[in-house]
Amino acid sequence: MIENSKSNAAILIIGNEILSGRTQDTNTSTLATWLNTLGVKVGEVRVIPDIENTIINSVNLLRKEYNYVFTSGGIGPTHDDITSESVSKAFNVPYEKHEEGYKILEAYYKPGEFNDGRQKMIWMPRGAKLILNPTSGAPGFYIENVFVLPGVPSILKSMLGGIKNKIVGGNPIISQTISLRTFESHIAESLTAVQNKYKNVEIGSYPFFQAGKLGVSIVIRSDDKKLIKECSSEVMNFVNEKKIEVVNRE
Amino acid sequence: MIENSKSNAAILIIGNEILSGRTQDTNTSTLATWLNTLGVKVGEVRVIPDIENTIINSVNLLRKEYNYVFTSGGIGPTHDDITSESVSKAFNVPYEKHEEGYKILEAYYKPGEFNDGRQKMIWMPRGAKLILNPTSGAPGFYIENVFVLPGVPSILKSMLGGIKNKIVGGNPIISQTISLRTFESHIAESLTAVQNKYKNVEIGSYPFFQAGKLGVSIVIRSDDKKLIKECSSEVMNFVNEKKIEVVNRE
Repeated sequence: MIENSKSNAAILIIGNEILSGRTQDTNTSTLATWLNTLGVKVGEVRVIPDIENTIINSVNLLRKEYNYVFTSGGIGPTHDDITSESVSKAFNVPYEKHEEGYKILEAYYKPGEFNDGRQKMIWMPRGAKLILNPTSGAPGFYIENVFVLPGVPSILKSMLGGIKNKIVGGNPIISQTISLRTFESHIAESLTAVQNKYKNVEIGSYPFFQAGKLGVSIVIRSDDKKLIKECSSEVMNFVNEKKIEVVNRE
Repeated sequence: MIENSKSNAAILIIGNEILSGRTQDTNTSTLATWLNTLGVKVGEVRVIPDIENTIINSVNLLRKEYNYVFTSGGIGPTHDDITSESVSKAFNVPYEKHEEGYKILEAYYKPGEFNDGRQKMIWMPRGAKLILNPTSGAPGFYIENVFVLPGVPSILKSMLGGIKNKIVGGNPIISQTISLRTFESHIAESLTAVQNKYKNVEIGSYPFFQAGKLGVSIVIRSDDKKLIKECSSEVMNFVNEKKIEVVNRE
């Protein structure tokens, strides 16, 4: 693990549709990649069902353990959208109409279209601050260190720009990937030696199949460019020594 | 939630590459879909880093809480593959060479190719039973209710057939999806009424964007075909009443 990363986060994906396998979650990858650029390391992801107690307990556990919690899903207008009310209960504050959010949606919809279902979307925990939604109107919110975002990937993505300045991160976590035409077992020992030498760099080894051929991607991650460079040249030393073909380096 | 489902499972995805956003997890969806056909409901997914204590604690917590635990990742030959040793520690049993696994890999590789790195892959908790790997030789294993599988999606998939008869599930969980050209807020109230009437059916509502048009998929899930049929016809009643266009029904 990258031990010198000062800021961390947990991601909480809320929704039966992910647990049933019907929907492939992509928000984890979106959030994690974005957080890396802000120097925030994702320590844990949980996917949980739309059950009030599970949401409350998970939010309360994660918000104490991590600098930031990002939830995704369950803030729409239907009966299975219970995230906002559950987060209110987690914080033990009233669940109520957010005045500013109300005005935003009132202006967003045509007269007569701002019905009960849509009004449900601006019920939030007292004290919540809005996260604006440039795609479809209905805002998300944050309260203390918990950021509540929608489940629809394109909408979630479009809302991240609005909260960038609320996140205090470290140096961006950068990575270098060296993809090799080899087997993991062929480089395991050499790679262990490099990892042992660079404790603060995270070195991962990931086999891949591409165009019918096996290979291994070595991923070197750190928030320190210099360390990555050093580490990467140590890897290249044994790669050259073993005469391993480099497929890609990025 | 589907309360009459008797068998449940947790999925534990182990790997820094998922948490960094570099790799998009697809094993959750593969495992969940497969488990549904066996009548096993996935109650929770966790994605955790390659840290021994985190793996031990997560395995021990989940194996007590769920009928089955499926782990994915971290059973290869490199330094970051620590799942098998961590699972041994979770069960408090020795981590040792699996004799049958050794013979399988010895026969799989050409003479001289069964090196130390590869031998690491058949070190397992004492008492582990093998899960055969028809794709790339190195087996997974299970111990009590914990099934330890690799992270590479195609390999994981190919190993599921071999454990099907180890899983005791309920009736397969089936679903019907009705996709509508409407807004969630337009049907929220009617849908709530149907959900309140059918407590043992799980009704989800998921907005989608397709070809620039908004729509809502209503997903009805249960292990009882008759209930799904009843519930679905109640949905169709309000759909017809409101003159909503049905995009798809499957």
